[in-house]
Amino acid sequence: MKESSLTRKAPIGAGVARVPRPVVRFRMRVTRGDAIAIGPGKIALLETIHQTRSITAAAKAIGMSYRRAWILVDDVNSALKRPAVASLVGGETGGGSTLTEVGLELVAVYRRIEANAEKACAADIKRMLSLLAK
Amino acid sequence: MKESSLTRKAPIGAGVARVPRPVVRFRMRVTRGDAIAIGPGKIALLETIHQTRSITAAAKAIGMSYRRAWILVDDVNSALKRPAVASLVGGETGGGSTLTEVGLELVAVYRRIEANAEKACAADIKRMLSLLAK
Repeated sequence: MKESSLTRKAPIGAGVARVPRPVVRFRMRVTRGDAIAIGPGKIALLETIHQTRSITAAAKAIGMSYRRAWILVDDVNSALKRPAVASLVGGETGGGSTLTEVGLELVAVYRRIEANAEKACAADIKRMLSLLAK
Repeated sequence: MKESSLTRKAPIGAGVARVPRPVVRFRMRVTRGDAIAIGPGKIALLETIHQTRSITAAAKAIGMSYRRAWILVDDVNSALKRPAVASLVGGETGGGSTLTEVGLELVAVYRRIEANAEKACAADIKRMLSLLAK
């Protein structure tokens, strides 16, 4: 069947490609009881704080309220022996936030785990994808 | 501080242990555009159908509506080249459902990937957990 003009006029997000390419995502979470201590959302927030040097700017970049971002940062800091995010006091920029050495290590080790997991399972992932319809 | 009787009377799930042991969970999803083709929920449903030989019984065991379970099974079957779940027609038990060879392989390869991912990353996982507060 030829693609109709109706298909092409479909709203964004309604699925322009009929069958998008399958993507494998590994997600790791460290839970404590019902609470997620470390997970993909918190790691992405830490990375964005590292880039923007600001919780406010990071929240905006991710599309999250400042309050929500602050709570997540507080959660992460409480979950760790030593905090992942520190406030910069004063200076020309009037504050801001930065990742501590522990914060940087947490992000690095988390991303390394995800990447290595995918690498270690490449053959099985290929096998699984071969079961999927084109 | 001694554990008070108030603490002991806390409702189930309200957190009996003050700091539960951290648990690492790897979750893999195969997405296509916005849709999750294969994920932990669907795999758990397939495993339960395999055990119960019935979509109805599996839905009940998981605490899911029959309708929801049926939709998930239909999703999985549509995502694959060949279906993962087949209906058993007639017989003494009057029907029921079973995993096909493809369904069994999908579950096995999915669980193998999760287990191997965790094994391959054991050292980094240990390192990450060492950053957490006790």
